[in-house]
Amino acid sequence: MNKGLKNCKKDFPLLSRQVNHQPLVYLDNAATTQKPQAVIQRIVDFYQQSNANVHRSVNTLSLQATEQYEQARSKVQHWIKAAKPQEIIFTRGATEAVNFIASTYGADHIQAQDEIVVTVAEHHSNLVPWQQLAKACGAQLKYIKVDAQGHLDLQDAAQKITARTKIVACTQVSNVLGTIFPLKQIAALAHQQGAIVIGDGSQAVPVMAVNVQDLDVDFYVFSGHKMLGPSGIGVLYGKEALLQALTPYQYGGEMINEVDWEDSTFSELPSRLEAGTPNIEGAIGLGAAIDYLDQLSIRAVTQYEQKLMQYLLPQLQALDDVQLLGSEDWTQRTGIVSLNLGNIHPHDVATVLDFQGIEVRAGHHCAQPLMRFFNVTATVRASFYIYNTKEDIDRFVAALKMAKEFFEQ
Amino acid sequence: MNKGLKNCKKDFPLLSRQVNHQPLVYLDNAATTQKPQAVIQRIVDFYQQSNANVHRSVNTLSLQATEQYEQARSKVQHWIKAAKPQEIIFTRGATEAVNFIASTYGADHIQAQDEIVVTVAEHHSNLVPWQQLAKACGAQLKYIKVDAQGHLDLQDAAQKITARTKIVACTQVSNVLGTIFPLKQIAALAHQQGAIVIGDGSQAVPVMAVNVQDLDVDFYVFSGHKMLGPSGIGVLYGKEALLQALTPYQYGGEMINEVDWEDSTFSELPSRLEAGTPNIEGAIGLGAAIDYLDQLSIRAVTQYEQKLMQYLLPQLQALDDVQLLGSEDWTQRTGIVSLNLGNIHPHDVATVLDFQGIEVRAGHHCAQPLMRFFNVTATVRASFYIYNTKEDIDRFVAALKMAKEFFEQ
Repeated sequence: MNKGLKNCKKDFPLLSRQVNHQPLVYLDNAATTQKPQAVIQRIVDFYQQSNANVHRSVNTLSLQATEQYEQARSKVQHWIKAAKPQEIIFTRGATEAVNFIASTYGADHIQAQDEIVVTVAEHHSNLVPWQQLAKACGAQLKYIKVDAQGHLDLQDAAQKITARTKIVACTQVSNVLGTIFPLKQIAALAHQQGAIVIGDGSQAVPVMAVNVQDLDVDFYVFSGHKMLGPSGIGVLYGKEALLQALTPYQYGGEMINEVDWEDSTFSELPSRLEAGTPNIEGAIGLGAAIDYLDQLSIRAVTQYEQKLMQYLLPQLQALDDVQLLGSEDWTQRTGIVSLNLGNIHPHDVATVLDFQGIEVRAGHHCAQPLMRFFNVTATVRASFYIYNTKEDIDRFVAALKMAKEFFEQ
Repeated sequence: MNKGLKNCKKDFPLLSRQVNHQPLVYLDNAATTQKPQAVIQRIVDFYQQSNANVHRSVNTLSLQATEQYEQARSKVQHWIKAAKPQEIIFTRGATEAVNFIASTYGADHIQAQDEIVVTVAEHHSNLVPWQQLAKACGAQLKYIKVDAQGHLDLQDAAQKITARTKIVACTQVSNVLGTIFPLKQIAALAHQQGAIVIGDGSQAVPVMAVNVQDLDVDFYVFSGHKMLGPSGIGVLYGKEALLQALTPYQYGGEMINEVDWEDSTFSELPSRLEAGTPNIEGAIGLGAAIDYLDQLSIRAVTQYEQKLMQYLLPQLQALDDVQLLGSEDWTQRTGIVSLNLGNIHPHDVATVLDFQGIEVRAGHHCAQPLMRFFNVTATVRASFYIYNTKEDIDRFVAALKMAKEFFEQ
């Protein structure tokens, strides 16, 4: 395993704590990641040295804060290979970014009889905004299936995406299965039919090299807190021409140019789509998270996660009476594993693991349609990240065995 | 002056820095405030000890994070004397909170011929969302005037608010003038006509005791970063029955109850109106800011600001050829001062002050209608807060005199 990565655990202060008198094994990274000291310190430095409102004044402090905020935007731009910094709009998170597009582009373009296509594996945040938009407009919502191992069914996609399709919303990595979806091919299918594509990168950007221009997605969203950054900050990427044509989602602050008594004019991108004081330290903290990942190298991150899976998956497959969701091919997945142990309720498994200091998640993972598709009500989900080790895996597997013995006595 | 307050400057690490080789005098508090070490440390502690996603799991870390997040909600509730914690919805800031109400309550209730009433002194964030809503619905936007000293004209308000009025949006303190508006009387006038009232507390909550039940406002908004807290966090207060009846503004995450293929059901307040992962550390930091202010006592804060104004205003009035906006009665205002020096451009004044380490703001302060009302294009605004001292005022006044001499040579 990559030594630089293996040693990175020490950079994360929280990981040295105990939970239930046991050394913590944090395996809930698909929900949120821990923060390296470099990110924490960057935020502290901002508060202690540069805090001011951005874009608002000629004063020195404000100019310094603005420069740092815009530097963060450039870092995001380069991280996902966007063509221009003004294609990066800061939001509260991926959820807000999807709602933003559904409420603006969606509301302006979807009419009765139109179709919106999603996958059965979407997180609620990239599903319910489209579902509610379709409901409000009398449009139809269609679901692309996955196969038994959770791979996206491209043949089904080609059938579901038709000349009536206006919007296709597709995650790049399933937050339940860890399966990597062929977002580039989905974008091509959508564009053949004249539809636009919104990609959900929430589980992809933290773990793999993303190039939005190569994917040819029209919009792309992700959250800072799932990639070592703060919560309350996320990104809406959009192709410049599309962003320029958008109705503003919110009004106020620096997005405004001139206000007259009865109407107003609005400023240029990107501030045109960022109403009010933004999460300044959030954006700067996200920039620091990108710096940290960049210094490890995103390719090393991808390889490391795959090596963890290569070590973990055979051990899980060897367990008696385990239902393991997702691809058997570890090159097709990231560090997310969903499973059920016989008939033991996932919450019970998670509780037993928690007793041993192992933090996983049990539930529907904000993906109830996918649960229904696989005919389960919930799963245990363990999601691994750069600071997890083979030792963490050993403790996780041992704890699963213990849970099984405990409940099957 | 209150000794506890006078000594508080040392709690703010940034205030010991220099700007342009001069000790900083930070007078841009109406744009954003500095953060005490107690707030910074609270955020660091969260990252280092408790960081996890909220409301998501049975695991110990997540439960601890959720408890801290909900404690912050209770602190906000008690700070503004709301009846219940579920009346507190966390947003990115005041701007998002106003847009939230305009896009949900506003869009659901405003029809052609209806009237929305605002004041000429609203910040763009509490004006443009209503203006654009009125425009979209064919409703009329009406403005309540202020008098020459910036006091809200209650007689004009009584005339402008009619049986056709559905929404009245009114700030509690002008961000340009510092004038305190009679929000309680405005709410009474609105309710007599069957309209609802949204109060903008962005400049009020940091400096005065606010009781939303006594004000009898239906909605009330403010931002964390203007009251010693982080940016990226703000509050939408609403009366429970009104919040319960709102269409959700955004979909995703814990606001969802059940998702079926074609429709979904949504959870209870407050999570019903908080889609996606919230700004967890932002809310916790805001809670710490409230603790800090509470320990100083908000009444002491109000008195301290008034004493600063009592010391400053006569000195400004004594300057030659100064145009001083706002009330001459310092009991009617907070620590915000807007002025112009003869014909010197406000940006030039701000630049000269910045050279001396004094950070003020020059511009229209996101209140262009008010600028038009007072027939100015811009002003110099100095806004004082708890860590500012008489010495800061002395340096500010001396610098103004110097700017005047410099440009009038």
